Amino acid sequence: VCKWQILQRPKACSYRRFLLFRPKQAGNTSNPDGSNVTMINIDQILGLNTLGISLVRIDYAPYGVNPPHTHPRGSEILLVVEGALYVGFVMANPNNRLFTKILNPGDVFVFPFGLIHFQFNIGKTAAVAFAGLSSQNAGVITIANAVFGSNPPINPDVLAKAFQLNKNVVKYLQSRY
Amino acid sequence: VCKWQILQRPKACSYRRFLLFRPKQAGNTSNPDGSNVTMINIDQILGLNTLGISLVRIDYAPYGVNPPHTHPRGSEILLVVEGALYVGFVMANPNNRLFTKILNPGDVFVFPFGLIHFQFNIGKTAAVAFAGLSSQNAGVITIANAVFGSNPPINPDVLAKAFQLNKNVVKYLQSRY
Amino acid sequence: VCKWQILQRPKACSYRRFLLFRPKQAGNTSNPDGSNVTMINIDQILGLNTLGISLVRIDYAPYGVNPPHTHPRGSEILLVVEGALYVGFVMANPNNRLFTKILNPGDVFVFPFGLIHFQFNIGKTAAVAFAGLSSQNAGVITIANAVFGSNPPINPDVLAKAFQLNKNVVKYLQSRY
Amino acid sequence: VCKWQILQRPKACSYRRFLLFRPKQAGNTSNPDGSNVTMINIDQILGLNTLGISLVRIDYAPYGVNPPHTHPRGSEILLVVEGALYVGFVMANPNNRLFTKILNPGDVFVFPFGLIHFQFNIGKTAAVAFAGLSSQNAGVITIANAVFGSNPPINPDVLAKAFQLNKNVVKYLQSRY
Amino acid sequence: VCKWQILQRPKACSYRRFLLFRPKQAGNTSNPDGSNVTMINIDQILGLNTLGISLVRIDYAPYGVNPPHTHPRGSEILLVVEGALYVGFVMANPNNRLFTKILNPGDVFVFPFGLIHFQFNIGKTAAVAFAGLSSQNAGVITIANAVFGSNPPINPDVLAKAFQLNKNVVKYLQSRY
Amino acid sequence: VCKWQILQRPKACSYRRFLLFRPKQAGNTSNPDGSNVTMINIDQILGLNTLGISLVRIDYAPYGVNPPHTHPRGSEILLVVEGALYVGFVMANPNNRLFTKILNPGDVFVFPFGLIHFQFNIGKTAAVAFAGLSSQNAGVITIANAVFGSNPPINPDVLAKAFQLNKNVVKYLQSRY
Repeated sequence: VCKWQILQRPKACSYRRFLLFRPKQAGNTSNPDGSNVTMINIDQILGLNTLGISLVRIDYAPYGVNPPHTHPRGSEILLVVEGALYVGFVMANPNNRLFTKILNPGDVFVFPFGLIHFQFNIGKTAAVAFAGLSSQNAGVITIANAVFGSNPPINPDVLAKAFQLNKNVVKYLQSRY
Repeated sequence: VCKWQILQRPKACSYRRFLLFRPKQAGNTSNPDGSNVTMINIDQILGLNTLGISLVRIDYAPYGVNPPHTHPRGSEILLVVEGALYVGFVMANPNNRLFTKILNPGDVFVFPFGLIHFQFNIGKTAAVAFAGLSSQNAGVITIANAVFGSNPPINPDVLAKAFQLNKNVVKYLQSRY
Repeated sequence: VCKWQILQRPKACSYRRFLLFRPKQAGNTSNPDGSNVTMINIDQILGLNTLGISLVRIDYAPYGVNPPHTHPRGSEILLVVEGALYVGFVMANPNNRLFTKILNPGDVFVFPFGLIHFQFNIGKTAAVAFAGLSSQNAGVITIANAVFGSNPPINPDVLAKAFQLNKNVVKYLQSRY
Repeated sequence: VCKWQILQRPKACSYRRFLLFRPKQAGNTSNPDGSNVTMINIDQILGLNTLGISLVRIDYAPYGVNPPHTHPRGSEILLVVEGALYVGFVMANPNNRLFTKILNPGDVFVFPFGLIHFQFNIGKTAAVAFAGLSSQNAGVITIANAVFGSNPPINPDVLAKAFQLNKNVVKYLQSRY
Repeated sequence: VCKWQILQRPKACSYRRFLLFRPKQAGNTSNPDGSNVTMINIDQILGLNTLGISLVRIDYAPYGVNPPHTHPRGSEILLVVEGALYVGFVMANPNNRLFTKILNPGDVFVFPFGLIHFQFNIGKTAAVAFAGLSSQNAGVITIANAVFGSNPPINPDVLAKAFQLNKNVVKYLQSRY
Repeated sequence: VCKWQILQRPKACSYRRFLLFRPKQAGNTSNPDGSNVTMINIDQILGLNTLGISLVRIDYAPYGVNPPHTHPRGSEILLVVEGALYVGFVMANPNNRLFTKILNPGDVFVFPFGLIHFQFNIGKTAAVAFAGLSSQNAGVITIANAVFGSNPPINPDVLAKAFQLNKNVVKYLQSRY
């Protein structure tokens, strides 16, 4: 009793719910960055295990930023659906070359494996992008959080020397996370 | 003389164009399937080489179908942006179990590596979906085309026996590609 | 007391049985396809786990066919031991090019990762082939079974449109699995 | 004009010859080991590139041996077609455990990735086996050749100490390759 | 004429120089960080290609730092040979947990794939460490250089928002690279 | 209460001990080989799981040898810290070419994936080397032990034929392990 009738899936045939996920229509961007990332990875869809793919929806308030970050286990391909984004990534040592582009709806950009990258909404209206990641669990390392907001904090002597900052400046930065 | 001013990328700083691609806003769905797939893979963006990720935009006319196909080198995660799609995939032998779901805008579904899958627009309006694929060159094998429309055609004796069809039916099917 | 004597393995030294498998000397080919595949993979030999290799024996009745199928997780290298086989595979879109060859005993042919392929016994006598697969669990998707014989069946509207067939023809095909 | 007629491949349709290889029906076993390995890998079939699979035919004279060796880039699954073979492999340090079995026609055995293994024909008649390897270029390191027959030879002081042999014995062994 | 005599490699037998590299006995640490990394990877030894391994020697002046950085393509295992190092790494979002340890000669520590990590010489004398990396070309992204010293610089509006800093502070930081 | 004070890690912040390992300062070389390998792999540091890297310290007595061996799952990069070592590896069939070099402190050498290699202390003093391996569990197969000292022993008929030795010599060699 599990046969097809026109366009109606028969109730007798169950489906695997873990293969489905309904993301929120718009992420909440009321935060200091003015952006929100909705991850759809192995934590939401168990069936993604070993499949090497995941998806994110990113919402940006006007002038919102998805701050500099890396994915330790994945490359990213990003498509802008609404708004205009200034995006970029930085190559590794020794040149630290920056590649950037202003993207409009329909534009696609690539952030290679493990490199620091960001997006910035340069318009007066909200923006939306979707991105594919080459891992079911790509991970996110937000640079500012990891460096100045780790738990416990990194010894400020290390950061003062590494960033060539006064130690009090480092402590001030650390106090805000 | 390559410094930033507000939101304007200085002309002196070039960018790598091969990292950008502008897909057509809507694919042409005036074909027998009533669907159109815009691939954004290594053929469009050379910089995707070795990155293990690509993207597609799929447009569907009302009742259009993205017919049963496989990707020999990638898994797929699909997000519906407009319209309602009936989607599914079939597991391997011996059970050939079918998993299906009706997706609305915002819904996400996964098609595992190498399995036969399809999408069907069940609504009266056009539909749009985006999908990430876990390869810079996932490949597409449309089952009907590969089996009945190969070049040269497969010996009809083989297909008649394999599909348990009269040989004249096979020849008729082959004649339409 | 576990030392070697001439060509006799001492009973005191056990061996790991899971590393051994004795396939049936000839598979039963009394079925509509006229062929039989004996898989020797991780289901038969647990020790194959992570080793990336498996083996099959294929028996063909006269004019028997190993119907069009894919292996979602492996390439195949096939050696004919007895009989004469017409074999082939189809490349991916957009060309769907068919490569074929008639093989005699001692001939070897390769079916690349994920592509649709088949073998057909063109002789009046039984044929036998052995094949290696590049996975301990390569999987098999028989096209006819997956498309027309899935459980539950695919909505016939989808197949009618995808294969450009009358819907009653699709229902007839589905009824035979 | 490249259409199929019954069982005859039309001449107008070329095929890729590099996907075919005809091994010698029987390797020449008139050598000190009394065995012969016919490799069918990327050197014979260019199309195997990246496919992760290859095949060998092994012929054994009565009491012939395929001497202890490793494949640095592949696991092996071996099937005996004719004759009776005593086969085995040795696990890594610290236990160096030996697993062996006597195989008859139809028997299958597995040699895991990188481990030292061998086959020995224990019968009075010739034996034949086929094996799949999980690489298009698995490589072969015959232990005796690599240790005592390298070019140039390894310093005999090293081998004398490593094998706890008199240095003159080492030099004698080296002189025979 | 290429045979071994006691402990003397015969001149007639050449060796492949590209498999050898002689690192400087001590890197020059007269720089703001007070540290120096000598890489021994595919740029120095071509034979490392595809081998998935490389080595570094790190020298630290008293209170020198190897500043926070990531390797986009490799994990690291570090061994202290001289001196005392305070080392650490930060986990990914959302916790950004910091793991640290003070290492003395003979101690070993691991920095997992893609995570931000650092070493700091806490002693009054020079320190030396060696580390293995799981790639022939692991890459190095020094966070401070990539974020504040990229070429061209990242738009300061982006960094001001991402690091919650006054834009003039960002411009000051950028001016120092 | 987990904040940093100068160079003191606060006690309230625990660390993961499994990321630390303190190797013995010098391995015991009072054995027939005159060498000792201290492995630092997944057995000592659980956190190495999936990271693809491990480390060894090797101590050599005067004229000690790290005898011919292979790593079935890893390449090796070796750095000499003290003493002078004669090192080498042998390529696969058919050439079995030997590459060797005498290494002094600071010299680095590479042993590719799966090939037989060795080190020999050619000096009158103890030597020390460190090496990185491209796996968290590379494995070690000491050729002499695996061939002549397996448990149970390999049938001496096999070894006599493979090494072209008198069977009594083989039995004598086997008796010493």
